[in-house]
Parts: sequence; structure tokens; C-alpha cells
Amino acid sequence: MMIVMQANATAEEVQQVIGVIESQGFHPHVSRGAERVVIGVIGEARRAQADTFLRLPGVARVVPLSHPYKLASREFHPDRRVVTVGGVPIGGDEVVFIAGPCSVESRSQVLETAQAVKEAGAHVLRGGAFKPRTSPYSFQGLGEEGLVLLAEAREATGLPVVTEVMAPEQVPLVARYADMLQIGARNMQNYALLRAAGASGMPVLLKRGMSATLDELLLAAEYLLSTGNEQVVLCERGIRTFETATRNTTDINAIPALKARTSLPVILDPSHSTGHWAYVLPVARAGIAAGADGLIVEVHPRPEEALSDGAQSLKPERFARLVREARAIAAAVGRSALHEVPHVAAD
Amino acid sequence: MMIVMQANATAEEVQQVIGVIESQGFHPHVSRGAERVVIGVIGEARRAQADTFLRLPGVARVVPLSHPYKLASREFHPDRRVVTVGGVPIGGDEVVFIAGPCSVESRSQVLETAQAVKEAGAHVLRGGAFKPRTSPYSFQGLGEEGLVLLAEAREATGLPVVTEVMAPEQVPLVARYADMLQIGARNMQNYALLRAAGASGMPVLLKRGMSATLDELLLAAEYLLSTGNEQVVLCERGIRTFETATRNTTDINAIPALKARTSLPVILDPSHSTGHWAYVLPVARAGIAAGADGLIVEVHPRPEEALSDGAQSLKPERFARLVREARAIAAAVGRSALHEVPHVAAD
Amino acid sequence: MMIVMQANATAEEVQQVIGVIESQGFHPHVSRGAERVVIGVIGEARRAQADTFLRLPGVARVVPLSHPYKLASREFHPDRRVVTVGGVPIGGDEVVFIAGPCSVESRSQVLETAQAVKEAGAHVLRGGAFKPRTSPYSFQGLGEEGLVLLAEAREATGLPVVTEVMAPEQVPLVARYADMLQIGARNMQNYALLRAAGASGMPVLLKRGMSATLDELLLAAEYLLSTGNEQVVLCERGIRTFETATRNTTDINAIPALKARTSLPVILDPSHSTGHWAYVLPVARAGIAAGADGLIVEVHPRPEEALSDGAQSLKPERFARLVREARAIAAAVGRSALHEVPHVAAD
Amino acid sequence: MMIVMQANATAEEVQQVIGVIESQGFHPHVSRGAERVVIGVIGEARRAQADTFLRLPGVARVVPLSHPYKLASREFHPDRRVVTVGGVPIGGDEVVFIAGPCSVESRSQVLETAQAVKEAGAHVLRGGAFKPRTSPYSFQGLGEEGLVLLAEAREATGLPVVTEVMAPEQVPLVARYADMLQIGARNMQNYALLRAAGASGMPVLLKRGMSATLDELLLAAEYLLSTGNEQVVLCERGIRTFETATRNTTDINAIPALKARTSLPVILDPSHSTGHWAYVLPVARAGIAAGADGLIVEVHPRPEEALSDGAQSLKPERFARLVREARAIAAAVGRSALHEVPHVAAD
Repeated sequence: MMIVMQANATAEEVQQVIGVIESQGFHPHVSRGAERVVIGVIGEARRAQADTFLRLPGVARVVPLSHPYKLASREFHPDRRVVTVGGVPIGGDEVVFIAGPCSVESRSQVLETAQAVKEAGAHVLRGGAFKPRTSPYSFQGLGEEGLVLLAEAREATGLPVVTEVMAPEQVPLVARYADMLQIGARNMQNYALLRAAGASGMPVLLKRGMSATLDELLLAAEYLLSTGNEQVVLCERGIRTFETATRNTTDINAIPALKARTSLPVILDPSHSTGHWAYVLPVARAGIAAGADGLIVEVHPRPEEALSDGAQSLKPERFARLVREARAIAAAVGRSALHEVPHVAAD
Repeated sequence: MMIVMQANATAEEVQQVIGVIESQGFHPHVSRGAERVVIGVIGEARRAQADTFLRLPGVARVVPLSHPYKLASREFHPDRRVVTVGGVPIGGDEVVFIAGPCSVESRSQVLETAQAVKEAGAHVLRGGAFKPRTSPYSFQGLGEEGLVLLAEAREATGLPVVTEVMAPEQVPLVARYADMLQIGARNMQNYALLRAAGASGMPVLLKRGMSATLDELLLAAEYLLSTGNEQVVLCERGIRTFETATRNTTDINAIPALKARTSLPVILDPSHSTGHWAYVLPVARAGIAAGADGLIVEVHPRPEEALSDGAQSLKPERFARLVREARAIAAAVGRSALHEVPHVAAD
Repeated sequence: MMIVMQANATAEEVQQVIGVIESQGFHPHVSRGAERVVIGVIGEARRAQADTFLRLPGVARVVPLSHPYKLASREFHPDRRVVTVGGVPIGGDEVVFIAGPCSVESRSQVLETAQAVKEAGAHVLRGGAFKPRTSPYSFQGLGEEGLVLLAEAREATGLPVVTEVMAPEQVPLVARYADMLQIGARNMQNYALLRAAGASGMPVLLKRGMSATLDELLLAAEYLLSTGNEQVVLCERGIRTFETATRNTTDINAIPALKARTSLPVILDPSHSTGHWAYVLPVARAGIAAGADGLIVEVHPRPEEALSDGAQSLKPERFARLVREARAIAAAVGRSALHEVPHVAAD
Repeated sequence: MMIVMQANATAEEVQQVIGVIESQGFHPHVSRGAERVVIGVIGEARRAQADTFLRLPGVARVVPLSHPYKLASREFHPDRRVVTVGGVPIGGDEVVFIAGPCSVESRSQVLETAQAVKEAGAHVLRGGAFKPRTSPYSFQGLGEEGLVLLAEAREATGLPVVTEVMAPEQVPLVARYADMLQIGARNMQNYALLRAAGASGMPVLLKRGMSATLDELLLAAEYLLSTGNEQVVLCERGIRTFETATRNTTDINAIPALKARTSLPVILDPSHSTGHWAYVLPVARAGIAAGADGLIVEVHPRPEEALSDGAQSLKPERFARLVREARAIAAAVGRSALHEVPHVAAD
């Protein structure tokens, strides 16, 4: 941490800052520039309180020098990390496709979709049993009945299952049926849930909050990792911006920027990040081209009848095309080329 | 709901939309303009699925006509609603001040602060026992011990207590000690928590999520209200924008814009909405001038020693000045003038 | 345009709206729903004033039904439009690469860069002679001297030249030396400049403003097109959001979303949209995968000595790799596949 | 400027950075922390190129220590600066009201409005003759005829006139008729225009761009000030965020945050910052309460007939109430209290 003094800070003010640094057990390092003084705080900087110094007279600002996360950082874990979900490796050499309906609606719907996405090339089945809905009047999911149907679809197709968990007390129930727990965007900073999901020991798919910075996403991952669970996959799913032409704004930069900061796998959800089926295919291709380790895509046999997210769900045949084109891109430039992002941006 | 057809939609496409409307039990109403056809869906529009129509060929877009919320809306509840917290009315004629430390840190700290804010004119004591922190390495609150200290401070000062609850299973515990439950910004869309808090029957302070629209805030309130609990106070606490000069951007427009949409009380948290003690006072004044029913302010006897939010906490004497100036503003223009916002914007 | 009345609007209020519609020479079309009345305004809706109706009592809101632009719209110009710059077609079957230094700094720098990007596969040379700089203390460009050097580089390499014009009175000067005029992001809504650039009859590269919606970008194009100049290429260059990990946020959705709305060519500037050389390559690949008609990339032989944008400039050998990989992507999925975006989103 | 090295930077990489610093004529100052090395660049830091260092191997990031602006900064100009417009001081003890129609539409409209706002207490007349409109099909203003009418209204009422100038070549014309030049939000970074307006020697009202940071606004002011013209008034007019309930988001924090950074006067435009007449009054009150030196408000005798901005224009009697209430607020807490913002935030 560096403490930047105001241009007109007095010698007493500088001395007071030094005193506080020392009283906290850190070591001060003073630089006197042409215009102002800067004081480094030497020691385990993650422990120091920026706020403490911001309140001292003469202090202009406090600049952190290290990432606030450690277990999630590439600096400390430079090697690629591969997360295995029901035998499917995510973050390895092959691009992974996760697909299925937004919500589990019925036995026939989920079985039909699971079969279709498997044939199209999907590796993992997605589907929501507990649904976070903005309105209390919207369909809220089938609950445990949905989990049972997902498990039946796994039985029928062999595809492992990822599904969302919305509250700490649901974790044991969901863990009984699923192969991977999904933390949704709205719950990225639901810390009780992060701790419970981490403690389950199961693979976790962590979606970026719709206004979360990359640092905040990595700190949410740090909550999971700090339980000792290393099976964490990050997911870009669009952020909220001023642009309303699409439901969210796909932050495609986030893919290489995350890979520069962390060795955890990173996937893209082009369904939510665009909100419109017609844009899912081009943006899915873009995700692979940018280096994503996989895609998670909403597919419904009859989107116009879907109880949720019908506007952004693909029909199975369009999803099959998506898999073909995404694979062609991965092949054309080589997954190894896609993997390689210089480790320079980690400030 | 109005379904806007594309300019070049065919007669068959229009007919298909009409068919789907009727098959859902609604009544279609067709308008043929110079350039395109628009079809109204007549019936209980909140039940209709926009997504269904978005997928039909020839449909350009779907325009909702009603607010998605009802219990929270001023249209259906035109009269002012007053929420009473331990005998203190919020949303009535007097502006209410809620103040206290960000985190409960120790017995002496919370008692000293409670006494100071009471003397300065506060009506309710705030303080965090369970703290949602972006980093797993930050102080996470004292938990139940903090609740005990808050209850002791209430005993000593007579001030009712509001404190945050972070998970559904914490609700009974927090409800035992507090007079009002706070739902924090990160949990505004934690629906399991909203349902549990609503079901407790206690007054709830609902903070706006940092990227939540006003409609989403009102839908979160709708979750609470739909449990039958009408004791809901809304709180603007700053939104996330591109501007980094302050921690958040105070959306001062939200105060009159919420009051045009709902008759629930609306307060402002200038501590979080600015993130810097030096801006808390002017922005607190602005909140009252814009018509807020109260303020919630972080106060710490020695902010430079605070374990959280030291940068934005006021010292007690500055808080006392804030109360004086906010009251002077309320008096100068009259609370009745502040209350009056035309009911025109409710689209 | 549809005028949505409040749920509790009176018959007199409805009648007044109808009267105003008729007095303006339009035809009203009234739909009475279960909850409220909606009135369509039939006629040349682009001429009607939404504001007029917003001020009438009982009106909840006004919903436009048509895009505000017409010449730029795909609805009215469904066929692909190809813009030719010094013999190079943009928007045709081949992906186009525009490359060169941010600023023209010296004769040797621009000639060396032009030669290098040509060898790497670039089709057009970019370079700034007039530079819009946030600070008055930054290098402001060489002015006409820079234009002379660009023309010399064209002579030497055969590459046509695109360069920025910052004020209406510079248009004749820049037009004398360049093959295409660039309107920068800061000037997207500089209407005097748009009119002057359009009137020059030269091809124009129009960059999206950093907080411009797609509709606003298309309206800026409409200013150009309304001068009778059809040679307009649109450029996504990143938008401003809350995320600070990258200089801007590449709105990759904008590429298919623009193509759904307009048949004008769309290119991507991954240098500005990321702000960091390490992310330019993956995001450039993503742009092609999403269907962009080309890329504009900053290249400098020694970025650490660049007078502007050194952090985001590529060295020539990395640019050569970018061209190879972008071409491999275009080939793998076929430009025709990239071109095809359903014309559904045009609301 | 501080150069933060990566945790794993080598001694050679540190040495190379030191070499570059010295080769540029600056003096390096090395701090070795527990985890990484930080190197201060001592000398006239505004001249150094951050980008140069960002490209060197081993560099994690570059942290500027000084504001990028100097003439606009409070650090270098601590005393309040008062700008005088036709005899009216802005930034002094009294709050100033600027009011008038969005566009000058006709002789009778501008004279009637000027008379009404004068009677209501306005000090300066506003009105647009050259109008920047998002659509080429919207009313673009009366041009010079509008300037003539504004001058006639000044004659009739004694109110000095502020009006927008949109292009450098319009400056002499507008300067002939107006008392103050307005630079609109869309042109905040139109540097040719800033230079021309500055060089005119006239007072300039500089509106914040809709996605401009406070630093960028102050750098735009620096362009004006660097011409030797010190007559600059800053105007917050709302920023673009994700929230669509209001036309823009009033950044009320900007008022104290600007005053902490600069001693130039700061006013608020609640008409544009809200976009809805019903919110103008509460937000205008908020602006004064937050410490603004004045307000600029759109007033029209018959807003439903206005050719632009009818939705946000006030009728004269509501404007009169706005003046009364804003004055009551200023009086209640004292302009001196409003003026005082601690000079702490200037990082």
C-alpha cells in the first residue's frame, strides 16, 4: 500500500502517518518527490486498513499495490487449473459445451432437451429447478421435483448436471442430485451461500454479478477457494450498462482479462449476455475466439412456449450449428493459441 | 401488453400472433398504422409472457403497459404509508435520522456511539453484526455478540435498532434482538432472504442494489409485501456508474422518481452513496431537499480506527451538524412541500 | 407512436389527447384494455412530438413504434452496402484490416509502420495527424505535416489512408490528403462536423461515442447519409462502463445488433476497446467471429516510445499474427456465415 | 508517478525501468516492499508518459500522483473564483438562477418567457439558437435569427444572455449577441471549439459530457483556462447510467466533489439531469442544498407546444416556486455553510 500525501501536507502530517504505520506493526518507506511525499507501507499489506489512513490529515489517497485476492490469482497459481464435472474436464484442451433449458418445466421437456443437446455435442446438461425471478409473480421453478427430473435426464443421457442453488440451506439438497452447483449472478456476493457451496466440496460454477468488477468476481471466487474447494469455474454472463439494445452487454474483454489474472477456467454464457437468440450464435463464436474454455447456452425445443427466457433460448438445431461453428473456430486457431494470454495485466 | 409488428410483417404473421393471444385466454386488439400493425393484449397482462411473442415471426418488440409490481405501486395504494420502528414513524411528517457505526466492534464503541447519536438527534440506531464484505479477509462482524451489544445500547438509550440480516436462517436470531431488519444492497435480489424477512412480520429496510433499476427495487419490495408484511422502507444508497471520483453515484433523482411510483417511505444513505465523509453532509442535505423521509448515516467516534467504512464515517460532532442542517432544510421548505411529488411519472 | 394513458385517466383526459392528435394532422386509434387506454398516433410518426403528449394530463408514457432513423435502417435498405476506400471494398466478402500508428510522429515512423503493416496483410493505413487529447498538455499531433507524411506513405506502399478530422473547417484540408475521413468517438455527435464530412462526398469512418447507444450511432450515421453521402462505415470502439480493468468495454453484442438494424458495414477497433496490447489479439479474433467486416488496429514499431496510446499498440509481428488468426477464423466459419444475422431485432 | 513492478519482476527488469526514467531526465526513487518493488518518478510528472512504462517487462501498473490538470485545480488556486456575466456574479455569495426556453422558437415566445423568468427571480436568460439534436429530423434552431431575438429579450428585460455555440466558426457570431457562451455536453471534448471559445475571452458555461468523469470535465476546463480565459463556470447536467426511469442520472455527488477539486463555480441543470418536469423542483432544491452556486432551468410558457424538451420544461409559475424554495434552502443553512467543502478529496 502506498499513501500519497497532499502537495501541501506538513511535516507533522507526514510524521503522524509514519507513526500510525509503525503502531500497526508495518514498516514505513518515505519517498519525497518534487511535488509531494509518498509513503510505502511495508509488510503483509492485505491486512492494512486503507480507511485508517484516508482519515489522517494531509493524506490525499491510498493506493493498494497487490490484488486483494491470493488463492484465485495467477501470480500465486501460475499453472492452468482444470475442474472436472462428472468426468468432464473444464479448462483443459477441449472447449466444453453446457446446454439445456433455462427452467426445468416438465419431464418430457427436460428429457427431450437433454437428448437433443447431447446429440448436438453438449458435454454437460444445465437446467434450473430453483429460479431467481425478478418478479414474485413469475414462475419460480419446480424445486426438488425439477432436481429429480434433471437426475433422470442424466441417467438417460450420461450428461452430468449443473443447476443453480439459491440459499445455503438448499445446498445439501441440490448436491444430492447435481454434479456441479451454480451460483447465479444475483448471488455472487451472497457470502453465506458462497461458504456453503464451497464447503460442499462440489464443483462450483460462479457467475459474475451484473455489476461486479473482475476484482469482485475474483474475490467471490476467493470465498469459495478459501473453504479449501478448488473446483471453481468462472462465468462471464454480461454486465449492466447504459445500452438497452441488448439485455446485457457481453464483456468480451473479461475473458482475456480474467485469464491474465487467474488460472481458473473461464466460460461464457452468451444467452444471458445478449438476451436475444439471434445474437447468441455470433457472440458464442466470439467467446471461443477470445479464449473461453467453454460456453453455457440455453436451449429449448419450443422457445415460444418456455416458462422463462424464451427470447434468448436456441432451438436444438441452431445449438447444433453453434457447436459446429465454435469447434471450427477453436480448431482454426488452435486451443493452445486461445489459451495463451500474456501475464502482464495483473496489477 | 402491446405487440409491435415489424413494418414488413405479413398478414399470416399477424394472424399467428392473434391466434397465440387467444389460445392464452387473452383478447387481441389490432391497430393498423401507416407503417405497421400493433396488437394489444387485453386481460390480466401481468400474467402474459412477453418472451412467447418475441419468438413469433414478424414481431418487432413487446411493450409492457403496466408496472410489473402492484402492491408496491402508488397507483393502487395512493395514500402515504408510514412504517413504525420501535415507536418511531418513518414516512410521516418528521424527517427521521438513523445513525450508528458501520460495524459493531466492541461494547464501549457501540454504547459511546449510540449515546452520541442520540444526543445529536438520531431516532434509530444502526450497526452491523453480520457484515457482507467483498473480501473474505476483511472483518466479518461479531455475529450474535454484536446483536447482544446492540440490544444493550437500545436499553441504554431507548433508540430502536436496525441491523442487517444476510441469510434466511439468520432471520429468527436477528429478529430476536432488532426492531427492524435491513436487507443490504448485495442481497436485494436474494429472494429466499426476502421471503424470510417478509414472513418475520418485522419492519424491513430494503436497500437498493448497486445496479438495480427502480423497477427492480420495487419488485424486491413486492416480494416482501406479497408475504403480507407492509412494513417496508426503501433506501437509495448509490448506484454503480463509470464515475470513480466517489465510491458510488448518489441517484438523487431516485427520491422523487420513487415517490411518483410508490407510497412507501424512501430514505437516503449518504455514507455509502458517496463513500467519503467530506461529501456526506452536502449530500445528506440534498436528500432531504429532494424529499427523502429520512437519512441513515454511519457515525464512529474515531473513524480512523474503524474496522470498516472508516473513510465514510462521520465523527459525532459532524453528525450533529448534519442533523441541524437537514432539519433547517426540512423546516425552510416545509415537509409538506417535500412530500408532494406529482403522480405523473408512473408509466 | 402509442400514447399509454394512466390506469385512472378520465374520459376527458383521453378526449384531450385525441384532440391534440387530430389538431396535429394525425389520426388517433383508441384501444381500451382491462386496465387502461392506449391511443395510437397514425401518420408519419417520425414527425410527431412525444414531449407534447407527455405533458398532457392522464398520459403515463409515449412509446415510439419506429426507429428514429430511416436511411441507415436495414428495414428500408435490406441489401448489404459496400464502401470502397481507395479501391478497397469494406463490407464485402473479405475481411478488411486497417492498421497504423495512433499518431503520426515522424517520417521514418510512419513509413516504417506503413511498410510493416502492409507486409502483415493490412489493406488500409491509419494514422492521426490531428489528435483529440483529453489533456491540453498531451501531444496534439503534427497537423498538416502529418497529412503530408501519410500521403507519402500511401505513395510508398499503395495503401489508402484514413485519418481523423476534428473540426468542420479541417475537412477540405484533410480531404486533400486522405482517402477516408474518420469521425472520432468524442465527435460522434458533433453535428457541424458530421454535416461537413458528409458533404465532402468522401468515405467516412464513424466511430461510436463512448456512451452512445446503437440508436444514437445510427442517428449520427443518418446525419451523414442525409447529405446524400452513402459511404459510411460504422466502428465499435468500446463503451464506458463501471469496469476499470480495461480502458473501455468492448460491446461485442453491438456487432450483430448493428447488423440486425443496418446494412452499413461494421468494423471493430480492438485497440481502443481494450486499451491493452495483451487483449487486442483475442478481442480482434472475437470481433471477426462475431461478424465484423474488418478491424482497425494501432501498430507501432516501438510502442514504448509512442507519443500516444503506447499501451495498446501492437508491434508489427504481433499484428501479423493477428491478421493470420483473424483470417483463419473467417475462413473456418465462412464469411457468408459471419454475414448472416437474422433481421429480427429491428424493433 | 509511481511505477509498480510485478511481484516476480527480476532485478534486470527493475534496472531497465530505472534506466528509462533517467534517460527521460527524471529521477528514480526505489522502494522495496515485502512483495514487490515500487519506483517513484521524480520531476515534472505531468510530462512523463505512463504508456512508456506500461510496455516495459515486469511493470504491473503506473499510478499517477498528481491531478492531470493544474490551472483548474483548487490545490493551485485555493481561493473562490467568481465569474461575472453581464454584471451578474456566479460563484459569489448569492445563488444564481439562469432560466429560459430550451430553444428560441419565436419572438413572442422568447420575450414572454424572458419577462416571466425575470419576474420569478432569474438573473440570466438562457435559450438555444443553435441546437444539437440527436436526430437530423428534429428542429435544429433558428440560428442567427434566434440570437437576434435573445438580444432583443435582453434589451427588454435587462437579463444577460447565455446561449450554446456548436462549432468554432460560430464563436464570433454568437459572441456578438451573447454575454456567455455555452459549451454543450456533446461538445465537452470538442477541443477545437474549446480553444475558440476560450480565445474569445467571454465567460464560458461548460457542461459536463454525459459520460465524462470529473477529471475529464476539469481537463476540458483546463483547455479553456490554458487560453488565458479564466471566466469558466462548470455545470453538472446528469450522466448516463443503466437507470432509465429518468432521462439522465443527476450526479449530485459531483457538486461537493468538484468543489473539493476546483475553485471554479459549479451550477446544476436539473432539467436535463432529470428529463421530467415533475422531478426538476426536488432536484433543483437538492442542488442548492449540496452547495451548487446556481441553477440553469428550462422554462416554457406552454411546454406542450415546445419544439424541444417540452417534457422537462417548467411553466413559469412552477419556476417561480423553484426560485422561492431554492432561496429558502440557501437561507436556512447559509450560503457560507453551502460553500464550505473540505479540501481533502483532491487525490
